[in-house]
Amino acid sequence: MKIVIAPDSFKESMSAPQAARAIERGLRAVTSDTCHIVPMSDGGEGFLDALAVALDAERREVDTIDCLGRPIRAQIGVAGPLAIIETSRSCGLDLIPSSERDIRRADTRGVGQLMRAALDAGAQRLLVGIGGSATNDGGAGMLTALGARFLDSSGEELEPNPDGLARLATVDTTGVDSRLAKVEIQVACDVTNPLLGSEGAAAIYGPQKGASTADVEFLDGVLDRLATCWDRERAERDGAGAAGGLGYALIMLGAQLRPGFDLVAEAVGLRELVADADLVITGEGKMDGQTLRGKVPAGVLGLAGSTPVIALAGSIEDEEALYRAGFVALIPLQRGPGDLEEALAAGEGNATRAAEMMMRLALLRL
Amino acid sequence: MKIVIAPDSFKESMSAPQAARAIERGLRAVTSDTCHIVPMSDGGEGFLDALAVALDAERREVDTIDCLGRPIRAQIGVAGPLAIIETSRSCGLDLIPSSERDIRRADTRGVGQLMRAALDAGAQRLLVGIGGSATNDGGAGMLTALGARFLDSSGEELEPNPDGLARLATVDTTGVDSRLAKVEIQVACDVTNPLLGSEGAAAIYGPQKGASTADVEFLDGVLDRLATCWDRERAERDGAGAAGGLGYALIMLGAQLRPGFDLVAEAVGLRELVADADLVITGEGKMDGQTLRGKVPAGVLGLAGSTPVIALAGSIEDEEALYRAGFVALIPLQRGPGDLEEALAAGEGNATRAAEMMMRLALLRL
Repeated sequence: MKIVIAPDSFKESMSAPQAARAIERGLRAVTSDTCHIVPMSDGGEGFLDALAVALDAERREVDTIDCLGRPIRAQIGVAGPLAIIETSRSCGLDLIPSSERDIRRADTRGVGQLMRAALDAGAQRLLVGIGGSATNDGGAGMLTALGARFLDSSGEELEPNPDGLARLATVDTTGVDSRLAKVEIQVACDVTNPLLGSEGAAAIYGPQKGASTADVEFLDGVLDRLATCWDRERAERDGAGAAGGLGYALIMLGAQLRPGFDLVAEAVGLRELVADADLVITGEGKMDGQTLRGKVPAGVLGLAGSTPVIALAGSIEDEEALYRAGFVALIPLQRGPGDLEEALAAGEGNATRAAEMMMRLALLRL
Repeated sequence: MKIVIAPDSFKESMSAPQAARAIERGLRAVTSDTCHIVPMSDGGEGFLDALAVALDAERREVDTIDCLGRPIRAQIGVAGPLAIIETSRSCGLDLIPSSERDIRRADTRGVGQLMRAALDAGAQRLLVGIGGSATNDGGAGMLTALGARFLDSSGEELEPNPDGLARLATVDTTGVDSRLAKVEIQVACDVTNPLLGSEGAAAIYGPQKGASTADVEFLDGVLDRLATCWDRERAERDGAGAAGGLGYALIMLGAQLRPGFDLVAEAVGLRELVADADLVITGEGKMDGQTLRGKVPAGVLGLAGSTPVIALAGSIEDEEALYRAGFVALIPLQRGPGDLEEALAAGEGNATRAAEMMMRLALLRL
């Protein structure tokens, strides 16, 4: 029997690879069947972790900067001609304490540096996870790090952050790294926001990055100026507003934006793996009605066809809708009462126990 | 397929019948197989509830008294020639707020009144659950209600409580209800304490009923006096010290004391039911290493032979020992993080969901 173990991360408890291995340990207590570990991601947190394990990628440390320009080291993944970049590892919101956040001075130069490191490593194909950014620079920082220049009306180069870009007159892309022209860029992006306006980057995602109402208006104005100076048509594209407009700049580079699950599933060959499997196990931290709106377990279920899919989760609600959608069984991790903090800390042990119990029942012959 | 559902109560959350029905509801979502509801008990709390449902007994309300002589109504169960009596329904510790407990003035007359009501109902066989009593009267109260007299040296009748019995000189059983001689009394009793001494009723169970160190010495002296005036040999018997010495008085009436699980299992015909079943489901509030020491799920497992036994529990630990003992699967009830209070309140819903999940997996054909 072949078993595919393809969970998302269990947020704040286990990465997807940790969850997959914890589940495998539980199965191993009961069966010696072949287990394929295929950690998944929807493109957000855990994108690099999941793909690096699933593709057996080498992790490389890159000296780069955070969104406020402070030196940090960040990983990229390299698997042959393919490189994996998780933008939140350089311009991530979680890297900046909320008291230090300054969205008007934050930029995505670090992302561009990670991309350049990938090009230096010989990458022909970039898989980029965006999401969780602390920036709203329209991707100007990323482009700057790759050779573009953002100039004011007197031809002076501007800082590629909102405060700088407020004086933008010209975008000069002549110096952009020529290797990018031959590279395929695929971006995992689950949002469809345009760059500008009431559904745009600043209005929708600014406040969660610390922007005040006045900031939002200013930031939207800066992005509007960027679109005016550069390309207004592509600013309308679905996902141009992702990651503070980083989506827009990636679109300008010819990137293809795709739902994160689809991108990851294709990269790891999940469809072929599940077609060949007798049982598929997935899961995430919390499963409920929202799970069916494009989250990893729903994606796995969609690919599995007639192969039974069992899901494990730290917390489960809306079972009826989930069962109707086609999950064979929904297995909570908890072994008894306990608060969230305890549950998060006990994730791996509980996942192993839950997987063992699951397999014992699945193999029962009544 | 035939399924036997034989859980204990889930303490402070569900009675055994409630648990069994909640589990059945979960199975019903998946299968139309025959389910036998056999609520179980180890003889303590829930003894009447479990047996009344399992034996389809009629519940009768009896006007009686609590251990301090205050009027209460208490139920007994009547199923043909068989009556079910749970002693804690009249002299139960839980019926008396801790501030009002007074072990020197508490007695078991209420238990005798319930037994007399059973005789009046035509009972030929009494199943008596003892445990959880607030008394330490050596069963003198029970005997008094059935016609015995406890006299001082001047022949004056004493209150059948420790304060009264301190002056005991003679036990006069000539007036005891003659119907008792023809009635079989089976007592569910999981303790083996003798009546007296360091392992006796007062020393071991007195403190949890509110007895001080001085009280314990006094109470043990009273029981010693009772044994001297009545029968010293039977005071040594296993279980004579149960329920403040109520075990002793029941032994004096010719009762057979048996482990609670054995008594209940035999009364409901559990061995025959599981021999004929394809799957047995049991459970209790908390399962761990202690479960294997005579608790209901272990008893069910012991009777089941080669029929697979699955257990549900609100909280599970020591899975390895439990799996080694032979349970096919151990299924926690929790659907997510939450404290004990929430878990207790959500017991039935969670049990239904857990049972549904269990059955979905058990019926999976890989």
